[in-house]
Amino acid sequence: MACDLCDGDGGEVLFRDAKLRVVAVTGAEAVYRGFCRVIWNAHTKEITDLTRDDRNRFMDAVYRLETALRSSLDPDKMNIASLGNMTPHLHWHVIPRFHDDATFPKPIWAHAFTSQEMASDTTQQSHPDWKEAVRCALSA
Amino acid sequence: MACDLCDGDGGEVLFRDAKLRVVAVTGAEAVYRGFCRVIWNAHTKEITDLTRDDRNRFMDAVYRLETALRSSLDPDKMNIASLGNMTPHLHWHVIPRFHDDATFPKPIWAHAFTSQEMASDTTQQSHPDWKEAVRCALSA
Repeated sequence: MACDLCDGDGGEVLFRDAKLRVVAVTGAEAVYRGFCRVIWNAHTKEITDLTRDDRNRFMDAVYRLETALRSSLDPDKMNIASLGNMTPHLHWHVIPRFHDDATFPKPIWAHAFTSQEMASDTTQQSHPDWKEAVRCALSA
Repeated sequence: MACDLCDGDGGEVLFRDAKLRVVAVTGAEAVYRGFCRVIWNAHTKEITDLTRDDRNRFMDAVYRLETALRSSLDPDKMNIASLGNMTPHLHWHVIPRFHDDATFPKPIWAHAFTSQEMASDTTQQSHPDWKEAVRCALSA
């Protein structure tokens, strides 16, 4: 069965090892500054399908990413979510939230992007320094 | 500063220890069968504000809860999220999702409850057996 996260990287890869990768979102979603995903490389549906060691490894990447994003962007709140209803391939959305972002204080999913917005690419609106902080934090 | 999760339980308590509690949501949100929250008892903003041991303890409760909900309800997908933009007191939403639920495959936050829905109490629509499974899984 076709799976977007098996067939492609799912974003701009900032870190990758044998088990997982961290990507910065691209396209319209990049309007949320620092929005990244931690994607388990193997096609796995739920976190409780992983072994204990793999769960810890997966969450350690989330913590490193959150720490790097907090340090470099100083968000008002961090949002973390594993949903995957349409793409049941294990991944965490890790989203720094700011009082002046597009939907705060609502969850970002309260805003449905229009097809016009989805076709736009807001990647360049985002100051890129945080990406280097993420690369360093995950490689350490 | 007033905090809903310091001032109250935040739902029907299914498990509680010195560090955290697991509650079943009540009111309109209970339309999502099995929707629970894992709430850190102390007022803490982000998961990376916890020590490593406490993060592990928090996530272990999430895994136990997810396992119990999967066993007892057999959902099509599990959704897990830590948001807290309006209530910045660390808690995980743990939500079994079903093809025939109110918003699937969208995130539940894509649906804004009307004030009429919020005033309703759908708690009794939910078959209660899963609550006993959660109590057992967390106490084990």
